[in-house]
Amino acid sequence: MNNYGESNGDLNVHEKQVEGRDHGENGDGSGNGVILGIDGGTTSTVCVCIPIFPSSNTLPKPLLVLGRAVSGCSNHNSVGETAARDTLEEVMAEALSKSGSNWSTVHAVCLGVSGVNHPTDQERILNWLREIFPSHVKLYVQNDAVAALASGTMGKLHGCVLIAGTGCISYGFAEDGREARASGAGPVLGDWGSGYGIAAKALTAVIRAHDGRGPQTLLTNKILKALCLSSPDELIGWTYADPSWARIAALVPEVVSCAEACDQVATKILVDAVQDLALSVKAVVQRLGLCGEDGNGFFPVVMVGGVLEANRTWDIGKEVVKCIQEQFPGAHPIRPQVEPAVGAALLAWNFLMKESTENCHS
Amino acid sequence: MNNYGESNGDLNVHEKQVEGRDHGENGDGSGNGVILGIDGGTTSTVCVCIPIFPSSNTLPKPLLVLGRAVSGCSNHNSVGETAARDTLEEVMAEALSKSGSNWSTVHAVCLGVSGVNHPTDQERILNWLREIFPSHVKLYVQNDAVAALASGTMGKLHGCVLIAGTGCISYGFAEDGREARASGAGPVLGDWGSGYGIAAKALTAVIRAHDGRGPQTLLTNKILKALCLSSPDELIGWTYADPSWARIAALVPEVVSCAEACDQVATKILVDAVQDLALSVKAVVQRLGLCGEDGNGFFPVVMVGGVLEANRTWDIGKEVVKCIQEQFPGAHPIRPQVEPAVGAALLAWNFLMKESTENCHS
Repeated sequence: MNNYGESNGDLNVHEKQVEGRDHGENGDGSGNGVILGIDGGTTSTVCVCIPIFPSSNTLPKPLLVLGRAVSGCSNHNSVGETAARDTLEEVMAEALSKSGSNWSTVHAVCLGVSGVNHPTDQERILNWLREIFPSHVKLYVQNDAVAALASGTMGKLHGCVLIAGTGCISYGFAEDGREARASGAGPVLGDWGSGYGIAAKALTAVIRAHDGRGPQTLLTNKILKALCLSSPDELIGWTYADPSWARIAALVPEVVSCAEACDQVATKILVDAVQDLALSVKAVVQRLGLCGEDGNGFFPVVMVGGVLEANRTWDIGKEVVKCIQEQFPGAHPIRPQVEPAVGAALLAWNFLMKESTENCHS
Repeated sequence: MNNYGESNGDLNVHEKQVEGRDHGENGDGSGNGVILGIDGGTTSTVCVCIPIFPSSNTLPKPLLVLGRAVSGCSNHNSVGETAARDTLEEVMAEALSKSGSNWSTVHAVCLGVSGVNHPTDQERILNWLREIFPSHVKLYVQNDAVAALASGTMGKLHGCVLIAGTGCISYGFAEDGREARASGAGPVLGDWGSGYGIAAKALTAVIRAHDGRGPQTLLTNKILKALCLSSPDELIGWTYADPSWARIAALVPEVVSCAEACDQVATKILVDAVQDLALSVKAVVQRLGLCGEDGNGFFPVVMVGGVLEANRTWDIGKEVVKCIQEQFPGAHPIRPQVEPAVGAALLAWNFLMKESTENCHS
């Protein structure tokens, strides 16, 4: 029943990185060519180069990463189309060079990138890649949440991923290919379970305690100390000075600390965030029927992002899982053991294997 | 008991504007010089020029505005110090010119401007004005909420003002000069009763209905139609495209329409906003003891801003007053009959009269 056991806790499919060797025709499988997996986020872009494995049914253990490169932002919404393309080309060239491979060995590329919400976004980015690679190279462009899902399911598109870092999103696939998402709409549109959402509520609680609208809370001293401010008044200037969401989301550990010290305001903020995050997953599960007709069916829930990896006494991720399992006991949490770029590469490998199987049967 | 009756509904202290005449020594009182009142907002700056009235106890009816000029933004946080200073000087020169006066006739200036939260902000702006005017001219710099309060109390600093437009703030003064504020901290810090707050919650409700996290609501069709969008998915791109708060706040009438059509989601958003706005006022009243020891004392609540002036069946302002009066029956709502720039001018006049009375007695 559980196809994902090997990536849950006792996993031994760890990545193994081999750099600077010539993998042209050696015994590691790369003689069949390579696959590039790219995770294009808003702060950085990671590209990994993996060899093509001979079979679609088993993954080599440990999983071999031939080369890995990191570059800046490749989200065209943030940096513009030309800069995004340059970054992508550069990071792929570096990963290939580090793996001792070259452009001609590439069989498939999968790019998981934020800001892909419509087929038109996908088509535009595919066109850039088509200009770089010859026509026989298979190219796949996905929302970065899809690569994150694949990093937990080792390339299989089934189940639901929940990402909660600075932002949050829930994204799922049914076995028949249907997909659905919830949240991921940004701070204006109420992603309250995100790191930004949690921290913004904590800052609000400090202001409310200060101006008499809300109860006193440990958050006041904790947050002022973390920001080196002397009065809650100064928080107004602090938030206006820099609208970066990540800067606000960085306060989540302070909120967790206060909840661990039994502060009621901080605890309520985390409990609400847990409900919000669980609701995002439940909405996707319901729409795709991932839980089966009786509601008890097994499905993986891949958990990604700093908010869910808190590793603290007050464990947000654990509470989210508990909340999901109350409604769907078959929900099986997975904490990925490989990074999203590897997820993207495994996705490309799965697509490639599926296509070659279909071609064999047609 | 009620000193503010003349500015409430049946008011006859309307502004009367006289332009282009020479008011050097004519019979309208301007022979004693003029006062400039300025309302410096984030979108525009308004300056009015009024004559100095001979007595501190009564205001001439109708109140005479000799000249009025409008210019762009004078918030130094938004446009920088040089541009803000240039705008201020320009708008004052134009108001003086329209009133047939000149710089030498100015006795006092009061500038109510957003972004004044600390004595240091006040001091910096006072320094600009000191470079423009000779030392005998009285200069006052206040938060724009203070000018708005004065526009309802005809210059007297007593009571509480509630502003709810794109943003929201509550600001109050006790008779002894103590002051307090609540909210006004911006969208990140939870000004949920503001126009931005109401509309952001409505947009969130549309996303939640769409992705299965929330109930269906009339807001979906209403808002998509208003924005000429075809699917809730497109709201994500719409909010990212332009971070202006005013653009989002402009959707408040759609929320009110849906509440009037008995949509439960829209109604809850408005009920919550009413609670939030009333709470801001209550917090200020409580901290300043405006309601007296028995909690039943009279105090004015000046109501300003588009959210409170809805003039609709679902009347947000009316509900806010009801909610305040449940706790403080002496709360007396006032809807200003003059604009904030006139409030600033009346404030300068009151300060001036107070100082001259104190000088007489010293």
